Amino acid sequence: MVKENEVPTSLEWRVNMPDGSSRILAPESRQTSKFISRLQGLVMGIVLNIRGFLDKAWSLAVNEPKKVVHCFKVGLALSLVSVFYYMRPLYDGVGGNAMWAVMTVVVVFEYTVGSTLSKCVNRAIGTCLAGSLGIGVHWVASHAGDKFEPVILQASVFLLAAATTFSRFIPTIKARFDYGAMIFILTFSLVSVSGYRVDKLVELAHERISTIAIGTSICVFITMVLCPVWAGTELHHLISNNLEKLADSLEGYAAENFRVVGSKNVHEKDSSKRLQGYKCVLNSKVAEETMANFARWEPAHGKFSFRHPWKQYLKIGASMRSCAYCIETLHAGINSNNETPEFLKKPLNDACMRLGTSSSKVLKELSSMIKTMKNSTKLDILVDEMNSSVEGLQKALKTFPIHQHIPTPDPATAEVPSGIEEPSVTPTVLLLMKIVQMATLTSLFVEIASRIEGIVEEVKELATQAEFRDENSKKSKQTQTNPNEKDGNEHEVTMKTLQKV
Amino acid sequence: MVKENEVPTSLEWRVNMPDGSSRILAPESRQTSKFISRLQGLVMGIVLNIRGFLDKAWSLAVNEPKKVVHCFKVGLALSLVSVFYYMRPLYDGVGGNAMWAVMTVVVVFEYTVGSTLSKCVNRAIGTCLAGSLGIGVHWVASHAGDKFEPVILQASVFLLAAATTFSRFIPTIKARFDYGAMIFILTFSLVSVSGYRVDKLVELAHERISTIAIGTSICVFITMVLCPVWAGTELHHLISNNLEKLADSLEGYAAENFRVVGSKNVHEKDSSKRLQGYKCVLNSKVAEETMANFARWEPAHGKFSFRHPWKQYLKIGASMRSCAYCIETLHAGINSNNETPEFLKKPLNDACMRLGTSSSKVLKELSSMIKTMKNSTKLDILVDEMNSSVEGLQKALKTFPIHQHIPTPDPATAEVPSGIEEPSVTPTVLLLMKIVQMATLTSLFVEIASRIEGIVEEVKELATQAEFRDENSKKSKQTQTNPNEKDGNEHEVTMKTLQKV
Repeated sequence: MVKENEVPTSLEWRVNMPDGSSRILAPESRQTSKFISRLQGLVMGIVLNIRGFLDKAWSLAVNEPKKVVHCFKVGLALSLVSVFYYMRPLYDGVGGNAMWAVMTVVVVFEYTVGSTLSKCVNRAIGTCLAGSLGIGVHWVASHAGDKFEPVILQASVFLLAAATTFSRFIPTIKARFDYGAMIFILTFSLVSVSGYRVDKLVELAHERISTIAIGTSICVFITMVLCPVWAGTELHHLISNNLEKLADSLEGYAAENFRVVGSKNVHEKDSSKRLQGYKCVLNSKVAEETMANFARWEPAHGKFSFRHPWKQYLKIGASMRSCAYCIETLHAGINSNNETPEFLKKPLNDACMRLGTSSSKVLKELSSMIKTMKNSTKLDILVDEMNSSVEGLQKALKTFPIHQHIPTPDPATAEVPSGIEEPSVTPTVLLLMKIVQMATLTSLFVEIASRIEGIVEEVKELATQAEFRDENSKKSKQTQTNPNEKDGNEHEVTMKTLQKV
Repeated sequence: MVKENEVPTSLEWRVNMPDGSSRILAPESRQTSKFISRLQGLVMGIVLNIRGFLDKAWSLAVNEPKKVVHCFKVGLALSLVSVFYYMRPLYDGVGGNAMWAVMTVVVVFEYTVGSTLSKCVNRAIGTCLAGSLGIGVHWVASHAGDKFEPVILQASVFLLAAATTFSRFIPTIKARFDYGAMIFILTFSLVSVSGYRVDKLVELAHERISTIAIGTSICVFITMVLCPVWAGTELHHLISNNLEKLADSLEGYAAENFRVVGSKNVHEKDSSKRLQGYKCVLNSKVAEETMANFARWEPAHGKFSFRHPWKQYLKIGASMRSCAYCIETLHAGINSNNETPEFLKKPLNDACMRLGTSSSKVLKELSSMIKTMKNSTKLDILVDEMNSSVEGLQKALKTFPIHQHIPTPDPATAEVPSGIEEPSVTPTVLLLMKIVQMATLTSLFVEIASRIEGIVEEVKELATQAEFRDENSKKSKQTQTNPNEKDGNEHEVTMKTLQKV
């Protein structure tokens, strides 16, 4: 069998042969042009790839200038530490081990102050512990005779490395001392192994500790003085921003679902971006935990004391996620609810819109409460409003005028299933199927409202633990006219701040 | 002002003074006993803490013996690498830089083969790139004159460190080459800085590369030969286990909600643990991404080829999570549904139970399909069954005999809201409120079923990409009697495997 595309090529070849070399060149030049076009394609591909990469990098740099500043801080720290190499007197003092200072800076310098501090402390403690233990084991081994010395050293390395590696799997250790455990293994092996040769262990230890001290102090100085990025502050902003995103999503969905037909939003793209905000909340668990973990290492800064209740932020995050799960389900429900006829939606529209708006207001108030770290006087009013909207929605459902809005039966959907012969059932049956969708949506909104109350509780707990200030005197005077609107929790906070004054 | 608890102590003191030293001893011995009891408390607290810690560690070791094996592997690798120190000939060859081999082992040896390989490759590439670049910069600097040499070196360290640190923020680089970037900065600074003093750069580079080669080869050998833990296999098991957990949760919720009154589950604790299974799915995103990232570095092993579609597992994970969000909402709905009267639940009980069971069966089939890596002949039948259960549930809702089960009006709930005067509305109104809860639950089950179809699509895509085998011939003969039950996707797979034969 001859394949189609083979035929013309071989024919051309035979015809050209007697005519001379000029014809033979034709396929060659075609090959060359093919090669060139391929090369062009390859180069273009690479150029496009690099361009895309640079575009990404540029947008990252524009969106998060703090990260660019961090990069220059790393460069500065490394330049500073390498000065120790260039200045002879220091070089003679610290010796060839200045390498450890460079290494410390590279390994320890992290984006936030908390993570840098945690690594510094871990490195220092790990090195000291392992160094002293290594020297101890070495002393024991050197007194055990030449035969047993390598055995003791090897066995101790094996056992301690295995035990410390195992400890890194235990969650509490992993969260706080993972890096320290690694440094412990490293230092212990280096000390107990190199001790066999060098015999100047104490001097070595002294040198290493002093170089590590130089490295860590440079890191700590630069990270805390030049545009510091505090893990605690980042966590604080993350939580209050996420609350706002949840509020936006919820408001957006209420508007999307219960808006009057024909009145489309002007900025479709903007609104869809706002609707997707809750997705940030769904995936922020790991980020929150990491930040809370690092925040605990940080000293008092800005509005935060040393013992700021960072763990409470994790609880707020968890209750926010449980609310976001509901919004995710709502998202699916809304797509299927588009088919619900307007006459069914109308009676509930107002109540649902009110619930959506009032619960999003509560979330926004919580967000601004965290942002300003002030107790809100409006919060309880807003929560009451949300609860009364829930009751309003439930009342609207109860008084839903079924018998007033019976549609003219659609022949496609009005098929009465066999077995039911009463014709009077049909309109209710019809209605029921459509009510199911409405009911799902409304009860999701009610569920979301109850989960928002969970968030309110957690934020109030944070306000108590972190001793949020009251709002300025002008506003607090206004609230004195309605003292009944405060609940016990808020009273407690007020009492505490009063006692301080 | 005298504080209350100060008074008796000072009184006692004055009374005792004239009686002699025997009375004075009383408070002292009391202090001593206080001190002892405090010390006892402290020691007991520490002992209890340590005991709790050891208990945790023990249960971790029992539950995950693989991790214990990993610890001994680390110990073994370190012992092996320290042998290079003890053997003189090797010591003279590799020199004092054998430290780098130890360091490589400590830093590079990770739990899974993939992460170890990725770190090894990163370390090797980072070192080589930075080493050659460092030597290049050093050559340029040494030809620029004594004045400019430190300036050029410092500037290059500053700029390259800043640029590389920035690249670590870009997600694609962070996911695959984060460690390599760090090693690049480290090596470049060390080379360009130490070159100023040592003047034996090429020799130094040679030594470092050879020691790193020793370290990495020991790590790779041990991690791949002794009880290897493959990231790919772990991801594979994680996904199939999570599918099973979802199935268990779903089945459990269906049983919990629609079981006959009075028939409580025998193992309450077991069942609540099974119900919570979906929570593992909610929080497994980061673990899945990390494992998929490491799995790409692994060579072919077991049933997995080098180019196994690991990314597809992430898609399956995402669709599983979207299903888990719905189950989470269901979880809340069920608590509120406990009040729904039995006569209302009964007509829908069967349909809901059937849907819950059939969708959990689909999930279990998907799980076993992934576990065995074989195409399932039953899958499409089960999906059809699930879809017909959805239709059945919708039919049951349509034929819901409203007028047959009207309860005797409860005075507490039968309050007719003002504005509605028709007494005939009341029973429907009553029913409506309770139907809303039922409706929410049933439509959540329907939504879950539709999301399970999403999982089915993703798993089928995996089956196509990873070329799952067909089930054994005996079963495939059985299916030949029902050829119409296969869909296009499965046909494709069959065709591919047939072409291979």
